[in-house]
Amino acid sequence: MKKTSLLTPGPTPVPPRVLLAMAAPIIHHRTPQFRAILKEMYENLQYVFQTSNPVFPLACSGTGAMEATVANLLSPGDKAICVQGGKFAERWSEICKVYGINTVLIDVEWGDIVSPGVIAKTLEENEDAKVVFTTLCETSTGVVTDIAAIAQVLKGKDTVLVTDAISALGGMELQTDKWGIDVVVAGSQKGLMTPPGLGLCSVSEKAWKLVEDSNSPRYYFDFRIARKAYDKSNTPYTSAITLCIGLNEALRMIREETLEKVLQRHEQLAVAVRAAMQALGLKLFAKYPANVVTAVCVPEGIDGVELVKVMRDAYGVSIAGGQAQLEGKIFRIGQLGFMNEFDIITGISCLEIVLKKMGYKFEAGKGVGAAEEIFKEVCVE
Amino acid sequence: MKKTSLLTPGPTPVPPRVLLAMAAPIIHHRTPQFRAILKEMYENLQYVFQTSNPVFPLACSGTGAMEATVANLLSPGDKAICVQGGKFAERWSEICKVYGINTVLIDVEWGDIVSPGVIAKTLEENEDAKVVFTTLCETSTGVVTDIAAIAQVLKGKDTVLVTDAISALGGMELQTDKWGIDVVVAGSQKGLMTPPGLGLCSVSEKAWKLVEDSNSPRYYFDFRIARKAYDKSNTPYTSAITLCIGLNEALRMIREETLEKVLQRHEQLAVAVRAAMQALGLKLFAKYPANVVTAVCVPEGIDGVELVKVMRDAYGVSIAGGQAQLEGKIFRIGQLGFMNEFDIITGISCLEIVLKKMGYKFEAGKGVGAAEEIFKEVCVE
Repeated sequence: MKKTSLLTPGPTPVPPRVLLAMAAPIIHHRTPQFRAILKEMYENLQYVFQTSNPVFPLACSGTGAMEATVANLLSPGDKAICVQGGKFAERWSEICKVYGINTVLIDVEWGDIVSPGVIAKTLEENEDAKVVFTTLCETSTGVVTDIAAIAQVLKGKDTVLVTDAISALGGMELQTDKWGIDVVVAGSQKGLMTPPGLGLCSVSEKAWKLVEDSNSPRYYFDFRIARKAYDKSNTPYTSAITLCIGLNEALRMIREETLEKVLQRHEQLAVAVRAAMQALGLKLFAKYPANVVTAVCVPEGIDGVELVKVMRDAYGVSIAGGQAQLEGKIFRIGQLGFMNEFDIITGISCLEIVLKKMGYKFEAGKGVGAAEEIFKEVCVE
Repeated sequence: MKKTSLLTPGPTPVPPRVLLAMAAPIIHHRTPQFRAILKEMYENLQYVFQTSNPVFPLACSGTGAMEATVANLLSPGDKAICVQGGKFAERWSEICKVYGINTVLIDVEWGDIVSPGVIAKTLEENEDAKVVFTTLCETSTGVVTDIAAIAQVLKGKDTVLVTDAISALGGMELQTDKWGIDVVVAGSQKGLMTPPGLGLCSVSEKAWKLVEDSNSPRYYFDFRIARKAYDKSNTPYTSAITLCIGLNEALRMIREETLEKVLQRHEQLAVAVRAAMQALGLKLFAKYPANVVTAVCVPEGIDGVELVKVMRDAYGVSIAGGQAQLEGKIFRIGQLGFMNEFDIITGISCLEIVLKKMGYKFEAGKGVGAAEEIFKEVCVE
């Protein structure tokens, strides 16, 4: 018997209810029945995105939705400001480069974030920048950027704010309209508790002007075609039917729990993980840790790659290692999506077992105990 | 109780075995476990594509895979020959236009096909054409083009042959390597019996030279990045995990039945549908009818849109209507994927019932009887 636990920052566990909805006999996408599902899904997405903007579902991964955003907003030679500071943040400038965009890079140390003041200064020096590309939670470092404050800097300016919320949406506060984010990019496989394969983009009216102006080549990812279909509760081209059905079911679950409580739950799980790591004498990597993923420095003398491998292969508990320059230096615990206290306890306990095996010194149960202290605050309803 | 039957030319019914495989708890994509699935899937895809070329799985619909092909093979200003003659064939030139490709259009009447001679003549007049875009089965008209003969025309030439086999693969003969097709584009939701959301492209070494030369912008769809991942039994970016697992299960089913028998089964179902239509006095639309979808002219005095609607809404049997200029003029019966004799009998019977209701004159049971005559030839093993 091998029972497994998935505590990675995406893909995240898919609730049985979502799996079962997707396992029903497939229906055709050009039918009133499927259009009714899309209509409900579009409304539910607006609820989770906290926006009245349309949210386009694209059959692709999050990266596809990022490319769609670049291609729809910018033309070759246009200027854009890209905030760096992680593997996924860097993807913005990589895609911009492919599209011939003139990029102004704001380099941020991995694990740290950009300050709104730096954004303001960069904008002053680059008044012709059409877009600022940002990341709410950088999945590779577990850091959360203050997007609300950055949005404040852009208020009243022509520059459009784009935020990658792929790992944050549905797990952390993100007030698209209230903060003023023009394009929010998300994916199905993180806080939205659905298998990967759907990218999501919300697009404001301010951003729409850029969409109309862009002459970058795009067909499959063309927001103008997507919007026409969206307005008829449809998708252009063949919908990823089962993923849409699954996503809608997951969104129903979020509405039933209420977004407010979903976010509180994520916060509590994150606080517990952080408390556990500190109790084990481990250092958090991110200066401003996100509520959806906790990046932890691998202690000296421990092989970080091996740690993750043993947890997964010997105990069936999947967490994530470090990526790129952080390989072997950090590990990352996802507390994201369909997770409760005991998923977290399982992750911490397995970490304790394997750290102990590998020779790291600490009192067994200390991490779990610290998390329990947080969890005992849960109200019984 | 409403039991439904899906007889559309995509999406096609997903076998319970595939649905169940996809409903298992999700696994992470960067694991030995998932790489083993991808490795098997890649081998199984080569079997069905009848190729030793790599087959890249892209998380997108078939249209995304078509765009990927254009962007990877051609640069702005390059010349390409596009065979028209249906809603999906026309997509090639639409995408080429977006990418600034200089297109030479071969116009074919809908329902008819291009002759190899016309291809040869067009190539003579356009020796600098880098690509010829073709369609094996045009889903909108149900016609099958002689791709083997077209490939023969291109043999020894520099021009690369691209074939849209989205609705044909796994239902009709397609010998990628033996015929000499450089790029074959397919999708998960047709003969491959999996929900939509995966596009597939096989790419020959001859085509690869164009991939290296192309300067069209592409990131998510970049074959160069896809190939690097492919060689490590991986995918770039987050895989559409459940769809890959489902597709691999469906491919296993095809291997178990053997591709040869799968194609024979489709042929027999198609012959039965054609015999039934003729027995009902109905005219086939396509001059060379494909084995995966049968397009039938709506008889005079019958409302074709209503026919499809009543079959679906009153009887739960989904067939497809006509698209674009053929709306209301034809209907299309898919005999594609996970289908046996009695799926076809159900479709024909429902058609008879609704045609009778709508006032079309014929002897009830005639169509079903004609199909039965074909099916009685099945060998009992």
